[in-house]
Amino acid sequence: MIVDHIGNLSDALKGKKSTFALVIGTTDVSLIPGITVAGATPELTMFTPAADAEYLITGSCKVIKGVPVTPDGIPTPALLSRASLSLINVNKLVVNAGARVTPKIPFVDLHGEPGRDIRKGGVRKEVAENIIANATVLGENLSEEVLVVGESIPAGTTTAAAVLTGLGFNGVEIVSSSSPNNPKELKRKVVEEAVRSAPRDTTERIYWLADPVILAVAGLAMGFRGLTILAGGTQMAAVSAVIKELSPEKLNSVGIITTKWIINDTTARLMELVKTLGVKLSHANLDLSQSQHEGLRVYERGFVKEGVGAGGAMALAMANGVTSENLVKKIDAFYSDLINAQR
Amino acid sequence: MIVDHIGNLSDALKGKKSTFALVIGTTDVSLIPGITVAGATPELTMFTPAADAEYLITGSCKVIKGVPVTPDGIPTPALLSRASLSLINVNKLVVNAGARVTPKIPFVDLHGEPGRDIRKGGVRKEVAENIIANATVLGENLSEEVLVVGESIPAGTTTAAAVLTGLGFNGVEIVSSSSPNNPKELKRKVVEEAVRSAPRDTTERIYWLADPVILAVAGLAMGFRGLTILAGGTQMAAVSAVIKELSPEKLNSVGIITTKWIINDTTARLMELVKTLGVKLSHANLDLSQSQHEGLRVYERGFVKEGVGAGGAMALAMANGVTSENLVKKIDAFYSDLINAQR
Repeated sequence: MIVDHIGNLSDALKGKKSTFALVIGTTDVSLIPGITVAGATPELTMFTPAADAEYLITGSCKVIKGVPVTPDGIPTPALLSRASLSLINVNKLVVNAGARVTPKIPFVDLHGEPGRDIRKGGVRKEVAENIIANATVLGENLSEEVLVVGESIPAGTTTAAAVLTGLGFNGVEIVSSSSPNNPKELKRKVVEEAVRSAPRDTTERIYWLADPVILAVAGLAMGFRGLTILAGGTQMAAVSAVIKELSPEKLNSVGIITTKWIINDTTARLMELVKTLGVKLSHANLDLSQSQHEGLRVYERGFVKEGVGAGGAMALAMANGVTSENLVKKIDAFYSDLINAQR
Repeated sequence: MIVDHIGNLSDALKGKKSTFALVIGTTDVSLIPGITVAGATPELTMFTPAADAEYLITGSCKVIKGVPVTPDGIPTPALLSRASLSLINVNKLVVNAGARVTPKIPFVDLHGEPGRDIRKGGVRKEVAENIIANATVLGENLSEEVLVVGESIPAGTTTAAAVLTGLGFNGVEIVSSSSPNNPKELKRKVVEEAVRSAPRDTTERIYWLADPVILAVAGLAMGFRGLTILAGGTQMAAVSAVIKELSPEKLNSVGIITTKWIINDTTARLMELVKTLGVKLSHANLDLSQSQHEGLRVYERGFVKEGVGAGGAMALAMANGVTSENLVKKIDAFYSDLINAQR
């Protein structure tokens, strides 16, 4: 089944004019200690999306020194995305759905605001409506054949789990984590408390449980006329569930592409979910065990896994003639640049 | 000579993937009574760029009621641009270089600030450097073959005249006006005072005499790898002069496309200037005398003339198979929509 999907989506990316949009935002859920490794400390998670965007677009960060790393020192998957996109001809846009720290590069603003702790309501209704409306307008005004959308929002898998749970799926069991030790019990506790306090109305329930990025990515897909590739794992499954509620016919022109590390992590659960939702799923089949750098080889052991649209960016590059050998070389080279810059 | 240029540039637009970027900003020069008609009153000129952007992207304005009009009630040339772009497949982006009023739609922010009165220094050095650097990054990240850049900044022809004068050209004689009665004496007085107070260093002189939009458009062209079409009249000649100072080799991949109403207004002067600068010039040859609406037929008598990239947008549509008859019909239909919306 997956093999079949991979074939379809890769063909759909071949030779197509594409825009890669990185949607950034923050949620105060990432301030809960232990819930995310997308930043060396809970406070630093607020800088991660802006830093990811700066690195993706310019190759270096301005809002922090170096690049975002996990507490173990593993660098951001933006490295994989930047390397992939550097090898092909693609528009790159950064879209701010609502981030506490904004990047010091040009970005499209959706006039949202940072997400709050979902136990007290993630996104206020009027803010949510504004984010979705503006993202839809942006999607409508992009005329490429393919729109690949990545995300950077620490604790985004927890809000994704909350949205999925709120919509009747077994959210916490499905979601992945950027840590090899997925803090599922902590996520479950937060999600359950959030869902208990959420309004009954489906749309308001989504806003309560979501973060700004989930809403913005859904809006982009709802506005875009071509094929939208949701580049991510379980967060993009949550986006698909939101699209299915708000604009179900749009799901026909949406597919998810993630990394094989997510596929390995979530075993059959993500596949079951996307099948239920009726959305195509594919993954980029890159092997980092041949990398020169231990900080990249650990991806094969379940560290980081996905983010900043890495899976979609790698798939886009590989569908457009980049060999996996050349892609690993480029990723290695960019990693070396990072290390040398820090010396 | 012009005919030759038209041929070249139109061919260059045919069948190409394009992005249309509208760069907006304000300058306090527009608060000088009588210097511009891009707004019904001097104060309303501050709303014009945001309203133009909103109309271009969504078909209606949020920051004002109706659409921007001249004191005579002639509607914004955004009408011509929107009609043209609606008939073809093109990315549309709004870029904020520095506007006092920002549009309530998604836009790319360059982290600039509104331009000040050029008699006391138009754009502060660090702001100018930021605008140019961010615009260059944005241009680098657009991968289309053609980038068409329009502008909306009331009093932009006065700052254009100042920049051209500061760089040794006869600025005031060259610049056009959106009024059939070009207030040249007032412009000359403002420009002379600004140039007298400007620093000697060429780059700092440009910042002193410019507005945020001129700098942003120059930066976009300097970053973009394909063909950049500067969609405008004398303001885009000033942009060309800035590019020639800051990044002269880039002029080879730059062309200006404007309206025939600008060509008729500036007689031979604009042609001489662009020849001296070494930049190609072309114009869209649309006849609005067959329009159903007096508010559009007056373009043929020198009202409004250009703005919001109207010439470039019309040329892009016509190079891609839209007949002038169909274009006039679409413009008329959009004009009718405006009138009906106001009833």
